[in-house]
Amino acid sequence: MKFYDCSIAPNPRRARIFIAEKGLEIPKVEIDIVGGENLKDKFLSVNPRGLLPVLELDDGTRFDETMAICKYLEDIYPEPPLLGTTPVERAQIECLQRKMEFDGMIASSEAFRNNTKNESFSYRSLPGVDGIPAIDGLMERGYKTLDLFFHWLEHYLKDSKFITGERFTMVDITALCAIDFAKWAEVEIPKENTNTLRWYDEVSARPSAQA
Amino acid sequence: MKFYDCSIAPNPRRARIFIAEKGLEIPKVEIDIVGGENLKDKFLSVNPRGLLPVLELDDGTRFDETMAICKYLEDIYPEPPLLGTTPVERAQIECLQRKMEFDGMIASSEAFRNNTKNESFSYRSLPGVDGIPAIDGLMERGYKTLDLFFHWLEHYLKDSKFITGERFTMVDITALCAIDFAKWAEVEIPKENTNTLRWYDEVSARPSAQA
Repeated sequence: MKFYDCSIAPNPRRARIFIAEKGLEIPKVEIDIVGGENLKDKFLSVNPRGLLPVLELDDGTRFDETMAICKYLEDIYPEPPLLGTTPVERAQIECLQRKMEFDGMIASSEAFRNNTKNESFSYRSLPGVDGIPAIDGLMERGYKTLDLFFHWLEHYLKDSKFITGERFTMVDITALCAIDFAKWAEVEIPKENTNTLRWYDEVSARPSAQA
Repeated sequence: MKFYDCSIAPNPRRARIFIAEKGLEIPKVEIDIVGGENLKDKFLSVNPRGLLPVLELDDGTRFDETMAICKYLEDIYPEPPLLGTTPVERAQIECLQRKMEFDGMIASSEAFRNNTKNESFSYRSLPGVDGIPAIDGLMERGYKTLDLFFHWLEHYLKDSKFITGERFTMVDITALCAIDFAKWAEVEIPKENTNTLRWYDEVSARPSAQA
């Protein structure tokens, strides 16, 4: 296997933390998105959409979505389980993972990429190859959605160690990466969200957070 | 089990087609989103976000995301498989399902909900309870993303009966629902996309498409 990575980008980080929690060593190929390497022919022949991460199997099969990569790895390396161990748990994790992704990751991306004062992103409203102009209103929508994200996260963490209970899962990984990504849009965990702050310190201290 | 449904909405339809393809009969509770029933206390006690569909198990456990509902049903009723049968196939289906969802379903939603001339949606840029204003630029982004969606869909269908090969899967379900949803934003399959048109007629003729 080979992992096309970008050390500064939030989605590759989700997969890297997942891989580290599984205790796997997968050779990495770093792609420099700041220098535009993801939009050049060499990488576009790997992923025509110019997006990261990509997991490549030894037979050349490629997966170009973070959750597909994680599900594949969970299927072939079930321990420790990060996506649930029963049908109910798997569905609950899918529900919450998606909340963390839509209200956290995507909202941060909207807030960060649609700041029309940030010239590097004037035509990068969506990641990847297509020149879509930044949209002012979408930056605002991103900030409002992040408020909701933090509201719900605090609620989920009120009575439990991790977001879905006593076990660290993919939901925690996506939430952690979303929070660190939100900092790029200058948003931090609200000071009154004490359960979230307690959880954030704990998950950030895991060795995988440095992966 | 109980399925909170809305017969006109595109996401509940994805789950209904999935349920029909599995040959399951699950009692439905219709929620009238046009009349705002999803935003009233009774339904908010089922799903505080006001979103549909929701699957409720007999013990009260609820799943409020279409893909979580489908994954749960696939886990307990594996036949016929709609999410893949091997780790590689499952990951490939996850990758393409997400393309159909983001480039198709979400783009249609962006194009439809952010038409600032449509008064019913002036403060419904996102589905659910929160009054987020429609965003003009996002309607355009939705239309551009739909162009990409149709481009890639035609590419995937060039050499195969269904989007992922010879078997009908969740990828076809999401793509079909996205295409019918795009009509609400007055977008149709481009006339030159002959493979997509052939596939669309075929999947629309399956009994499940009427579910």
